[in-house]
Amino acid sequence: MNIVTQHIERSDPALILGLGQCGVAAVHEAQDRSGLLACGMRPIFAGAQLAGSAVTVSVPPADNWMIHVAIEQLQPGDILVVAPTSPCDAGYFGDLLATSAQAQGCVGLVIDAGVRDVRDLTQMNFPVWSTAISAQGTVKETLGSINVPIVCAGAQVNPGDVIVADDDGVCVVPRETAPVVLEKARERIASEDGKRAKLAAGTLGLDIYKMRDRLEAKGLKYV
Amino acid sequence: MNIVTQHIERSDPALILGLGQCGVAAVHEAQDRSGLLACGMRPIFAGAQLAGSAVTVSVPPADNWMIHVAIEQLQPGDILVVAPTSPCDAGYFGDLLATSAQAQGCVGLVIDAGVRDVRDLTQMNFPVWSTAISAQGTVKETLGSINVPIVCAGAQVNPGDVIVADDDGVCVVPRETAPVVLEKARERIASEDGKRAKLAAGTLGLDIYKMRDRLEAKGLKYV
Amino acid sequence: MNIVTQHIERSDPALILGLGQCGVAAVHEAQDRSGLLACGMRPIFAGAQLAGSAVTVSVPPADNWMIHVAIEQLQPGDILVVAPTSPCDAGYFGDLLATSAQAQGCVGLVIDAGVRDVRDLTQMNFPVWSTAISAQGTVKETLGSINVPIVCAGAQVNPGDVIVADDDGVCVVPRETAPVVLEKARERIASEDGKRAKLAAGTLGLDIYKMRDRLEAKGLKYV
Amino acid sequence: MNIVTQHIERSDPALILGLGQCGVAAVHEAQDRSGLLACGMRPIFAGAQLAGSAVTVSVPPADNWMIHVAIEQLQPGDILVVAPTSPCDAGYFGDLLATSAQAQGCVGLVIDAGVRDVRDLTQMNFPVWSTAISAQGTVKETLGSINVPIVCAGAQVNPGDVIVADDDGVCVVPRETAPVVLEKARERIASEDGKRAKLAAGTLGLDIYKMRDRLEAKGLKYV
Amino acid sequence: MNIVTQHIERSDPALILGLGQCGVAAVHEAQDRSGLLACGMRPIFAGAQLAGSAVTVSVPPADNWMIHVAIEQLQPGDILVVAPTSPCDAGYFGDLLATSAQAQGCVGLVIDAGVRDVRDLTQMNFPVWSTAISAQGTVKETLGSINVPIVCAGAQVNPGDVIVADDDGVCVVPRETAPVVLEKARERIASEDGKRAKLAAGTLGLDIYKMRDRLEAKGLKYV
Amino acid sequence: MNIVTQHIERSDPALILGLGQCGVAAVHEAQDRSGLLACGMRPIFAGAQLAGSAVTVSVPPADNWMIHVAIEQLQPGDILVVAPTSPCDAGYFGDLLATSAQAQGCVGLVIDAGVRDVRDLTQMNFPVWSTAISAQGTVKETLGSINVPIVCAGAQVNPGDVIVADDDGVCVVPRETAPVVLEKARERIASEDGKRAKLAAGTLGLDIYKMRDRLEAKGLKYV
Repeated sequence: MNIVTQHIERSDPALILGLGQCGVAAVHEAQDRSGLLACGMRPIFAGAQLAGSAVTVSVPPADNWMIHVAIEQLQPGDILVVAPTSPCDAGYFGDLLATSAQAQGCVGLVIDAGVRDVRDLTQMNFPVWSTAISAQGTVKETLGSINVPIVCAGAQVNPGDVIVADDDGVCVVPRETAPVVLEKARERIASEDGKRAKLAAGTLGLDIYKMRDRLEAKGLKYV
Repeated sequence: MNIVTQHIERSDPALILGLGQCGVAAVHEAQDRSGLLACGMRPIFAGAQLAGSAVTVSVPPADNWMIHVAIEQLQPGDILVVAPTSPCDAGYFGDLLATSAQAQGCVGLVIDAGVRDVRDLTQMNFPVWSTAISAQGTVKETLGSINVPIVCAGAQVNPGDVIVADDDGVCVVPRETAPVVLEKARERIASEDGKRAKLAAGTLGLDIYKMRDRLEAKGLKYV
Repeated sequence: MNIVTQHIERSDPALILGLGQCGVAAVHEAQDRSGLLACGMRPIFAGAQLAGSAVTVSVPPADNWMIHVAIEQLQPGDILVVAPTSPCDAGYFGDLLATSAQAQGCVGLVIDAGVRDVRDLTQMNFPVWSTAISAQGTVKETLGSINVPIVCAGAQVNPGDVIVADDDGVCVVPRETAPVVLEKARERIASEDGKRAKLAAGTLGLDIYKMRDRLEAKGLKYV
Repeated sequence: MNIVTQHIERSDPALILGLGQCGVAAVHEAQDRSGLLACGMRPIFAGAQLAGSAVTVSVPPADNWMIHVAIEQLQPGDILVVAPTSPCDAGYFGDLLATSAQAQGCVGLVIDAGVRDVRDLTQMNFPVWSTAISAQGTVKETLGSINVPIVCAGAQVNPGDVIVADDDGVCVVPRETAPVVLEKARERIASEDGKRAKLAAGTLGLDIYKMRDRLEAKGLKYV
Repeated sequence: MNIVTQHIERSDPALILGLGQCGVAAVHEAQDRSGLLACGMRPIFAGAQLAGSAVTVSVPPADNWMIHVAIEQLQPGDILVVAPTSPCDAGYFGDLLATSAQAQGCVGLVIDAGVRDVRDLTQMNFPVWSTAISAQGTVKETLGSINVPIVCAGAQVNPGDVIVADDDGVCVVPRETAPVVLEKARERIASEDGKRAKLAAGTLGLDIYKMRDRLEAKGLKYV
Repeated sequence: MNIVTQHIERSDPALILGLGQCGVAAVHEAQDRSGLLACGMRPIFAGAQLAGSAVTVSVPPADNWMIHVAIEQLQPGDILVVAPTSPCDAGYFGDLLATSAQAQGCVGLVIDAGVRDVRDLTQMNFPVWSTAISAQGTVKETLGSINVPIVCAGAQVNPGDVIVADDDGVCVVPRETAPVVLEKARERIASEDGKRAKLAAGTLGLDIYKMRDRLEAKGLKYV
């Protein structure tokens, strides 16, 4: 059965902003190294770092009809998260869809498939993380669903989850745990600042993290 | 048998120019979503968008001898289209061959294999679409053929076909149908301009394309 | 048994500098087309071209403990060369490790796995060649070895070998043969300069390399 | 946080048996073409067709400690479903673990990673679907979780879901919808029996499914 | 435009039978090492070796409607050759379609995509060469074409070409050159019989093929 | 420079036999989980389990000339280990070469590329581990080397090393450490026999290996 869930819970914008500022690596560590999408999910241009609420789209292979349907469900600050029901590298999304999504306030796209018009998308500064770049056209024949739980590039994404994306990839933060994850991510970043200064001054991680005894206990031999 | 076809038909330069201006996605749609090379075919630098007449080169794996032969067959405006007879990611082409090809008027290279000297090629502004970047050297021992029909990255290419290439990939347009394809691609682009303005103003694709009735008929449920 | 070899032989800095200036393609040809790492080994940012002495690191999958150990063994001009004992695309290395390595004089990283914090690494101008970009975190539980022979991306690397890396990829030069390889690479580059001028002037490679007789003898037919 | 959920709901054994008899293709169709694991998930020997209740195991890359923990949670008729937290093809499971799992009544293994001792597993008639065969050993250093929701080969699996597996691959049926899916799968199989007889007698699918009018309406031309 | 070409030329059955008996490797060599489909094209069961006339089918991704249309065009001795217009591993073909195809005299299937019901297909002894095994279902929404030139797994196939397939893969022989190819393949096989006896008796290929002088001339050193 | 090393050291036949009997998984563990070839290296038929001395062959891509040269260097009990200098899936080896190798006493082939005539090789009971099956022909134009150190499927292999191969893959044992590795592998197997009996009787690995305290110390929670 194909459905469009029209009302979803989203996280607090301040929380989303905070997670975006922390970045993917810190957020991924802060939630115990979970939630990362597969590393084939790459940005089409470098430098974007943001977070947003997931509007999920389950699409048939090579059929982008549901993306048109999804755009109506977008609110400012949302990120479209699209996954095909079987592997597909066709170009589901191009400059017209980006224009329309951007007009609704959408701040980016994460898609486990292809996109096209990448020069236009870059010029529009519309950030996209995809597993392919392809001009291959799609049809509008078969239904899918909007705002249902999906698996995107190996990660479970529920509608309203927070998507964090930057040059390192994409991480999903469940809405329920987002406040705790933000707190831990900020702690991690703060703690890293101190370590960075010591490391830059030449102190070794072996000493900062007090690793020598444990290495010896495990049997490491210096020769 | 290994042959070099010395005289091939090429398309009208104005036609080629026009197709290049339309770009890969529009041209691919204009010919009913056919002719696209596999999406592993990527530009070595961003921003090039052009078209040219295919001079086809069938090469043995890891042997670039035939590219030297092909260069003599180049005319201004041509694009070299190279496919190995079995899969290979060696670096068939570097700055010396690019210098030579450019001196004959060649405007680009499409190769279902590797290239090297990519920094030099970028500085020369010689656009290349390849499936690999590799310094791996090649030999000059075994013959191939020039200007015969080849399959390059999953697409049939005949000598003299129009090759259109940009940041989205590479599309081949058969010489015979190039005029019609150009006309359709321009119509498509013109039609998209109007839609883009409406979408940017916030009108939904669902309404522009009148999709709601058909979605309901197919059984989509809004919950 | 897991060991750290503390004293390794390195090549003469002038030799290393010279090999870096020649670049990967020339060096690879100069040593009879050997020593190239697999072409999935790509730079995280374009434009770096350098050489350094290999400090090798054999790491367990998804465990970066040994990189902390390796940093103590670095001397100015070294390149970390890291290979997991079974295939892994996790992000072993980020900005903290880069800060620490750079503080010891390390000039770059080559890793047959993933890295993260790529924007930071780029801003630090710390060049990395990797087979993946991934925020996936790693643990510190299992030992590996430092400065032992390893296979990295299909190439044998011994500690102290010269690593040459640029936009075309990465090549390893055994320490013993580095002087001869440098000489041959320089000869090749000198010889190419003359050819480049002729090719740019329109002379064909077929004539410069006197290929026509051999092509005919092999049976190539012009039609 | 790493947990072991000790009490999970399982489906009715008759339901599980029925789904196993229907097979993967019928069950996948009966639940609207959802739930299929990626097609890289292949049996290590041909001919097994079964279903069971999922005991899910989230494991670190190249660390099989949690499989030992999971075995204690097995009940007769269960299938172990194992997914690493980042991609890994190491051999997590061999004949000792299979002996232990079989002793607890486990009827099979589905793992998005490697297995080893495949000859022994075959002789034991212990069916395994895996994405790799590899002798690569694993460690026992890092915790994971048992009977939590996981993503395995692109499909969401909850503990207690019904896993159906045969030579075509693996499909997961949510426990809640298993009764309806079984009913639909049986209807589909019954309906196919009638069609199979007609098709074997030479009647065309074009006529059985009354496709000719729609093909013509879509514009198919016979030439 | 989507078309069904109803009348195609086929090769002489004796020629087809002969090519099938020669096998893929001999036929591929006999036509100068051309015509081989990519090596990902594997049989679903071992031991089948046959040839047939190609009925080509161009299908949209994940849509098998055109296979139903193609079955009406089959004649005894034909092989269905199916290629999607963009990469797809869905299961286009299962036991019902095989029953129908077999009823029309079809002797096998070659498909650059997935098949399902592989146990049934094996029991029916209906040979299939595919690039995937997958239960993933397909739709019947979008047209394709029958008996037009296609590219299948990297090889150009025209309707009526002879398809040769065995455990080594699949090779296509253009109808026009089939008689010559058969003759050359038989010569090759006859010549190999004599060599096989000598090699089995311990004579070295180095001597049978008189390679020693050429190896020395090329510079091979025995140490 | 291309060389053929004619005299290499081999291990004691009893040692080789013993390692073959232990099998790949046990041997790989016995040498601290090192020496395993990449898991894409698969047998062309199931059931072979053997060991032999490596005669190494470094070949150019798609050129099998050096295999003819290598056959002269074979002694009874040897295994040919072949690696191309750049990735290649062509079919380097078929029934004629197998006939010749077998006549010299060769017991198997390990090749990081393709083989063909797999039905013949199976009927000859000549075991092959390869990364591809392909009928693609090769040329005889370019030299390589015999009995030099090579990297094959990610593992360093020196001439005379012991190659162990079975249904789990291929492992290389350096000649120098072979006696110790055999001893450790036998100890491991002996120790596993006792564990297997306990596990089959239903005792849990958690108890046999006394894992419960360490799991609790690491923080595993039962809920």
